[in-house]
Amino acid sequence: VSIVQSVRWGDRGVVIIDQRLLPEKCVERELTTLDEVCDAIRTLAVRGAPAIGIAGAMGLVVSTRPRKGDSREGYIEALRANAETIRATRPTAVNLPWALARMVRVGEAQAGDSEVIHKRLFDEASAILAEDRAMCRSIGEHGVALITPNARIITHCNTGALATGGIGTALAPIYLAAERGLAPQVFADETRPLMQGSRLTAWELSQANIAVSILPDSAAASLMREKKIDLVIVGADRIAANGDVANKIGTYSLAIAAKHHGVPFYVAAPSSTIDPETASGADIHIEQRGADEVRRTGGTITAPTDVDVYNPAFDVTPASLITAIITDRGVHKPPFHFPA
Amino acid sequence: VSIVQSVRWGDRGVVIIDQRLLPEKCVERELTTLDEVCDAIRTLAVRGAPAIGIAGAMGLVVSTRPRKGDSREGYIEALRANAETIRATRPTAVNLPWALARMVRVGEAQAGDSEVIHKRLFDEASAILAEDRAMCRSIGEHGVALITPNARIITHCNTGALATGGIGTALAPIYLAAERGLAPQVFADETRPLMQGSRLTAWELSQANIAVSILPDSAAASLMREKKIDLVIVGADRIAANGDVANKIGTYSLAIAAKHHGVPFYVAAPSSTIDPETASGADIHIEQRGADEVRRTGGTITAPTDVDVYNPAFDVTPASLITAIITDRGVHKPPFHFPA
Repeated sequence: VSIVQSVRWGDRGVVIIDQRLLPEKCVERELTTLDEVCDAIRTLAVRGAPAIGIAGAMGLVVSTRPRKGDSREGYIEALRANAETIRATRPTAVNLPWALARMVRVGEAQAGDSEVIHKRLFDEASAILAEDRAMCRSIGEHGVALITPNARIITHCNTGALATGGIGTALAPIYLAAERGLAPQVFADETRPLMQGSRLTAWELSQANIAVSILPDSAAASLMREKKIDLVIVGADRIAANGDVANKIGTYSLAIAAKHHGVPFYVAAPSSTIDPETASGADIHIEQRGADEVRRTGGTITAPTDVDVYNPAFDVTPASLITAIITDRGVHKPPFHFPA
Repeated sequence: VSIVQSVRWGDRGVVIIDQRLLPEKCVERELTTLDEVCDAIRTLAVRGAPAIGIAGAMGLVVSTRPRKGDSREGYIEALRANAETIRATRPTAVNLPWALARMVRVGEAQAGDSEVIHKRLFDEASAILAEDRAMCRSIGEHGVALITPNARIITHCNTGALATGGIGTALAPIYLAAERGLAPQVFADETRPLMQGSRLTAWELSQANIAVSILPDSAAASLMREKKIDLVIVGADRIAANGDVANKIGTYSLAIAAKHHGVPFYVAAPSSTIDPETASGADIHIEQRGADEVRRTGGTITAPTDVDVYNPAFDVTPASLITAIITDRGVHKPPFHFPA
């Protein structure tokens, strides 16, 4: 199974798949300057929380390379300034400031001259990438045990190789199932309003020769009623201590339909997504996104230009609708008690 | 409350609202020849089963007007030929052949010369329009009793003035609620893939100054969870004898969510939609529509161009999820036993 890699080292910088052009064209771009790194993150050429964090850390290394003959102090100053510039490109992303803070901390703590520090930061960014890849694979290993031969699986949004440094989160068990000859068949909700399911998930699974169909989000329940679905796997933006899950809008609707039809409903996410500070879904603030995401699709006007829009970025699925939560640490079943 | 009229008589022919241009522009077109009538129906300038039937009957009158000095036989021959030409524009529409057959039958049965027959057919087409308007209003009268002041209502697709000769089917109770000062607040599912909810329902309710918001279909369940919805009203393509309802894809998903949240779920449709020959939803064949409706939205490519697509035209909501079915004859509650 050949799986795309959305972020990697190139000869001269960080190579990313430009996701703005998918699914029409797959173009790799090599980011070799601070401006190019910032531009790629700001314009969503690279997207998905883990992938953004990785691209930020690797991009920070690329951005400080011209300073590697400088004094130690000059290099550290540039490191801090560039990290701040990169961080400001996506103020609400969680993994990006985390990865950049880790890089700056490691740089500051490293003894030696700017050459030594730079080499250390290259290794640290490589470690962030490697850890993410290992995390994805671990989710996959735990999750693949839940997938039967020829399983027909609904997924939502894109939580695959395009969103991570590795084989994804919710898609990781599916990729491993394919590797093991289990021949999974995937139904990818298109995921209005931004269509990450039809644009990205369908594309990356096709690249790996995994059977995939797309459908309007509202048609998922009909597939279940026709007994054509064996399980659902989705990702998570945040998991509360009680097992309530915040994820892309539409996840909750899918979970209700799965419960109604007796279809297992799995959430797959890094264990870092579990937030012990969030007691339950009631504590999660739901951000509203821009109205024009719904009033338009691409260049097409699909609603009166001044109509009110309800466009929550995500929804909360209560733990009671979830069969199990798969993380890199294992498969958690209700009642959910996550290890610290 | 000012409600748009999608089909009406003009000085020179049949005046329709060109729905292809909505919601960007509201343009009325006057159809004065057979070609113009056929073109308007074929290209979906006029849409919605009742509206198509009405436009076909009225258009048939317009198309035979040049023959009204002819012999009786010549006129009847043109009447039959034009009816067949109009019927062929939308082979699967149900109301269109029904309305045209009624017109031809009345024309054939009318004594007198071509002038007399033509006058009779003008009256018959006017009667078809008037009957539809009365039917809509009757649905509205029965349904408005279910709407409380300031009710927050989800609807799906477009079953309003744009789809009928009158004030719609599922939207009829909403228009009457607005007329009576009940200030309904409507949430219109955008209704992928063809977006009739955001393009048409949002537009026609805005024209009537009724409060309306649009939302991705997948967000409806979240609105219910936030306790922001008091009831759901949708239309129906076909109602089986046991009360199972075939309607636009997404209706079933909405019904499951309504049941899960204890929100009343109403279906509003003409009593002619009840098909005693269809015992249950299991007897309804579900047509698959074209893949490119989902792979694209307007001019925008939203999926790999060769990806498989699951795109059912409608789904079946079992009677067990329906609180009541509102027709022009009254409000039917489960267990459903429709009078013959």
